[in-house]
Amino acid sequence: MKFGVLGSGLVGSTIATKLVSLGHEVKMGSRDAANPKGKAWVDKVGRGASQGTFADAAAFGEIVFNCTNGMGSLDALKSAGDAAFRGKILVDVANPLDFSKGMPPTLFVGNNDSLGETIQRTFPEAKVVKALNTVNASVMVEPGRVRGEHDVFVAGNDAGAKAQVVRLLNDFGWKNVNDVGDITAARATEAYLHLWLRLYGALQTADFNVHVAR
Amino acid sequence: MKFGVLGSGLVGSTIATKLVSLGHEVKMGSRDAANPKGKAWVDKVGRGASQGTFADAAAFGEIVFNCTNGMGSLDALKSAGDAAFRGKILVDVANPLDFSKGMPPTLFVGNNDSLGETIQRTFPEAKVVKALNTVNASVMVEPGRVRGEHDVFVAGNDAGAKAQVVRLLNDFGWKNVNDVGDITAARATEAYLHLWLRLYGALQTADFNVHVAR
Repeated sequence: MKFGVLGSGLVGSTIATKLVSLGHEVKMGSRDAANPKGKAWVDKVGRGASQGTFADAAAFGEIVFNCTNGMGSLDALKSAGDAAFRGKILVDVANPLDFSKGMPPTLFVGNNDSLGETIQRTFPEAKVVKALNTVNASVMVEPGRVRGEHDVFVAGNDAGAKAQVVRLLNDFGWKNVNDVGDITAARATEAYLHLWLRLYGALQTADFNVHVAR
Repeated sequence: MKFGVLGSGLVGSTIATKLVSLGHEVKMGSRDAANPKGKAWVDKVGRGASQGTFADAAAFGEIVFNCTNGMGSLDALKSAGDAAFRGKILVDVANPLDFSKGMPPTLFVGNNDSLGETIQRTFPEAKVVKALNTVNASVMVEPGRVRGEHDVFVAGNDAGAKAQVVRLLNDFGWKNVNDVGDITAARATEAYLHLWLRLYGALQTADFNVHVAR
């Protein structure tokens, strides 16, 4: 399958590499078509990997991942054009983290909104699925880094899109995927970042996650 | 030991009953010293149980639990008087839930504050420890209702106070207690409520909790 991965940072390159390793074709999108991090990634991964602008990657992908920095996500997505995501699954991995007030970062959305919803509102014809934003990049594509049972979450308005993302997460190695509801539930998985950040501070490792026990 | 439990609702009566069952003396505090729910609780529990105003309960307890509704917590605590919590451990179990906008409720504090911190600021001589607010009342005192490993969290500025609360949580049956930092980490455990509420909606039971896997 063809994927667009928006963002050439750690999260983008980690997701993009995993998708290629699963046999998919991936175009990494950046602001600049000749982005050096994108080029380094293409050179390293080789077959199946390409790069371009955000618009190029969005047009290329049958499914598109938003792995841009949360603060820049809307601008990045808008630069791909309004039509870029029409009818497509847009997996939103970004978090609305605000590092401007020091560490730990806070969130730039409040209790009644989320980055996921903002993206869905901005691109109403996209099928936005919030996913994977609750774990570190390495854990996203290698759940085995954390011992025992642990879970990820999906939120989105389109049941079919969520089901397809769940299958993809299964391919990534995830066994426990909790559907927490429509895209407004992105508030919940984004707000969890507050706890993630404190646990990260307490545990001194990013190789952790939560399991929903019952 | 002597405990004051502020609040005669489900959380207050559940915590108070557990404390009595562990051999402690408990005074339940309400706005009205003759609160009928408080009276019903005293009649049911008997020996070790008493009731009074918020001020009576705060004065009685060597450790005080805030189990009032989050929206009313500050008023309830203030009615106990500024000196009531001086030097005492104040275990804040309340959540800043705002039900005024329908279900699921949202939070009335933002990303840069929490109810726990507000209480600590309002009563600077209290040793506020945020705890147990991440699970349902029944699970608070009976962790075995949820299968497998699962965790609670403590946040507070006073290490000794946190250690004493951890021992009390151990007495309640909790094996995994994560210290997530000073009282500002109450933002994290309170913000987690967004996820708790969505999981509650998805799982259709309150007998669940998270485990921190690593």
